[in-house]
Amino acid sequence: MHVSQTGAVMSHLTGVRAIMKDIIDTLRAADRPFINLSPGNPVILPEMAALWRDCTHQLLAKQSFDAVVGRYGNSQGYEPFIEAVVTDFNARYGLALTAQNCVVTPGSQSIFFFAANALSGPMADGTDKSFLLPNCPDYTGYGGVHLNPKNVRAIAPTVEACGNTHRMKYHIDMAQVTDPHNGIGPSTGAAVFSRPCNPSGNVISDEEVAAIVNHAAKYEVPVFVDSAYAPPYPALNFIPMRAHFGPGVVHCISFSKSGLPGERVGVAIGDPKIVQLIESFQTNACIHSSRFGQAIAALAISSGRLPELAQAVIRPHYQHKIGLIGEALDRLMPSSLPWYLHRAEGGLFAWLWLQDLPIRDWDLYQELKRVGVLVVPGSAFFPGLVGDWSHSRECIRISLTASVDELYEGIKRIAEVVQAIYLKSRH
Amino acid sequence: MHVSQTGAVMSHLTGVRAIMKDIIDTLRAADRPFINLSPGNPVILPEMAALWRDCTHQLLAKQSFDAVVGRYGNSQGYEPFIEAVVTDFNARYGLALTAQNCVVTPGSQSIFFFAANALSGPMADGTDKSFLLPNCPDYTGYGGVHLNPKNVRAIAPTVEACGNTHRMKYHIDMAQVTDPHNGIGPSTGAAVFSRPCNPSGNVISDEEVAAIVNHAAKYEVPVFVDSAYAPPYPALNFIPMRAHFGPGVVHCISFSKSGLPGERVGVAIGDPKIVQLIESFQTNACIHSSRFGQAIAALAISSGRLPELAQAVIRPHYQHKIGLIGEALDRLMPSSLPWYLHRAEGGLFAWLWLQDLPIRDWDLYQELKRVGVLVVPGSAFFPGLVGDWSHSRECIRISLTASVDELYEGIKRIAEVVQAIYLKSRH
Repeated sequence: MHVSQTGAVMSHLTGVRAIMKDIIDTLRAADRPFINLSPGNPVILPEMAALWRDCTHQLLAKQSFDAVVGRYGNSQGYEPFIEAVVTDFNARYGLALTAQNCVVTPGSQSIFFFAANALSGPMADGTDKSFLLPNCPDYTGYGGVHLNPKNVRAIAPTVEACGNTHRMKYHIDMAQVTDPHNGIGPSTGAAVFSRPCNPSGNVISDEEVAAIVNHAAKYEVPVFVDSAYAPPYPALNFIPMRAHFGPGVVHCISFSKSGLPGERVGVAIGDPKIVQLIESFQTNACIHSSRFGQAIAALAISSGRLPELAQAVIRPHYQHKIGLIGEALDRLMPSSLPWYLHRAEGGLFAWLWLQDLPIRDWDLYQELKRVGVLVVPGSAFFPGLVGDWSHSRECIRISLTASVDELYEGIKRIAEVVQAIYLKSRH
Repeated sequence: MHVSQTGAVMSHLTGVRAIMKDIIDTLRAADRPFINLSPGNPVILPEMAALWRDCTHQLLAKQSFDAVVGRYGNSQGYEPFIEAVVTDFNARYGLALTAQNCVVTPGSQSIFFFAANALSGPMADGTDKSFLLPNCPDYTGYGGVHLNPKNVRAIAPTVEACGNTHRMKYHIDMAQVTDPHNGIGPSTGAAVFSRPCNPSGNVISDEEVAAIVNHAAKYEVPVFVDSAYAPPYPALNFIPMRAHFGPGVVHCISFSKSGLPGERVGVAIGDPKIVQLIESFQTNACIHSSRFGQAIAALAISSGRLPELAQAVIRPHYQHKIGLIGEALDRLMPSSLPWYLHRAEGGLFAWLWLQDLPIRDWDLYQELKRVGVLVVPGSAFFPGLVGDWSHSRECIRISLTASVDELYEGIKRIAEVVQAIYLKSRH
């Protein structure tokens, strides 16, 4: 076989995907149990598993089950599911959405694949437009979706770090982002960020979102807000946050962190023109998304149980763990070292910055493997970063999906290894 | 928003998809019932619906249900499903497939999307390779999958028609297909055909498949055999046919005609290098296919019930209907007119060629709408056809998914309209 230009690009795995192979090989070859703090795979919470079982039983009790699995649907998505989302969002946020504002894709990753390629890359006039990430570190998958990867561009944030509390927070570098030459401007096709953020746990403020959207509107640049961790489901925000709707904003939801990652359900909510563009691309690429996941999610939303359990079960589970990680680090990491945990504002991960780390994050990842701990080296989360930023090689991502005991033991070993590395470099 | 080159291509719906809108609008605006002979949506057969309900109950009874929906999977597919397919195919065909030969995609349409773009189109050296259809008319979806549509190229078949029996059959134009300049050669990236064929019901002979594959091997061109209607499931072949495996062949199966179109389950079986290329593309575009459909299909295969019901229920249902259509046409169409029904070798459709039809197929479609009958004009099934071939405007596709009464009444009206059109042109 001969591989095309597109084939060469798409046969390349980037970011976490590239590391995943090493993690799988490591686990396979291991002669002792590993503490695996790398996964993005959410914990199966008993209450959520019960919800999805209940919804499946309900669906099976209906005649409509036969048509859900037994009929092709339209490319926009399963009508009762769209109806449930629209009704819920309109009531919740005082909106006037209709079905024309929604398209369902096989997971929200596909929204970004369709959008990145339909809105950025080579244009008809021969110029290129970029797929802009205004708030890196950000979701590693944005680095893999583009058929023309050079068009993925990320802008480094500013870092607010407090040496006394060992906490940090990223802020949008608004000067850069609103600079039409380097940030969002005439050569930008679309912008995207996750909120809450994977990997950092950052929640861009309501004001920052509004500022980005308003600036982007000047250049007709759609802004995709990846709300995979946002309220109302899975509600993995640990601070209050408002959803932002309106012209130019595409609010992207996922059901993966609500307990349905296996079913690949993503929804893009926004301007009908953008929605229709994604829908057509989907028609050509895969006809439509699978419908069972949509059908049970419709039942879970319209009964009110999903939004309720998201707040009562999903959020507290992870919020508890990120709290423990903070306490463990405070107890086990020497105060004299320049380590910073990102403020726990939301998401499924803890993000640790080790300022002036004497080795690269990739080497730290290897050192941690030796003591039986798997994390994800932070450099996987800076796809498209313009310029060299040492910070991008000084971070690790710690998943909150491990048990409390594993998390504590993992943090203990991380603290030991990190201390030894700093110490060694000072001698 | 500004739409990229890729966006412009992918916002364009081709073939049947383009006609679908007119069909939906027609049905919506209709003040009387239509006989709809256009759908590709399979009939929900009670035995098949019962099978999928049973498998769902079985899955719910297992602990593994929670992980099927509640965990991300790997991009290759759900392991027990791949295992079931591999075990069944190895036993059935005497093969030695392993999991490395398989990748599961969200419907077989996605296989063609990934393969067409990874194996054809612009190459690294600046040349283009084509996505070749050696046996048009063929599946309309092949026309929509390419990001660079000019690279889709179809070769017209030879037509064997018998005026006495009013039956016809397409044969591969092997001279053209094996001509390295016009057919499969150094500028071909991949070849694809459906077998049994949508729309014609043709089954390319075992010898023809072997000849294409052998010729393609000389140029390292993979051949994708779209087996959406083939044995062992859904077994919509009405004549014997052998599956062809081996180097360079990618056997593509679908579960849509086995009663799971809503779940989007496709499997590409072939060379691990090609499988891996598709898998990587899928990782970047949508992570993995949804798992519920795979999980119930695994149960239906490993119990032996799916292959059994395919032969006992699915095949006879449609074979009976295509038989009735032939009888109805023989009874209702004047023998003096040059009409030809394609031999009923397999699939879900009847294909009617009206030689020297005085109007275009699109106009015939409009005329049939006036008498309350919806078909699909045949020209939708010649994506990429090189050159002008009047035959491509003289055919209609009739779906076997309507009821027996509707089919009879529909054929009656078609016969009346067609006669009137030929008659009018002779005055």
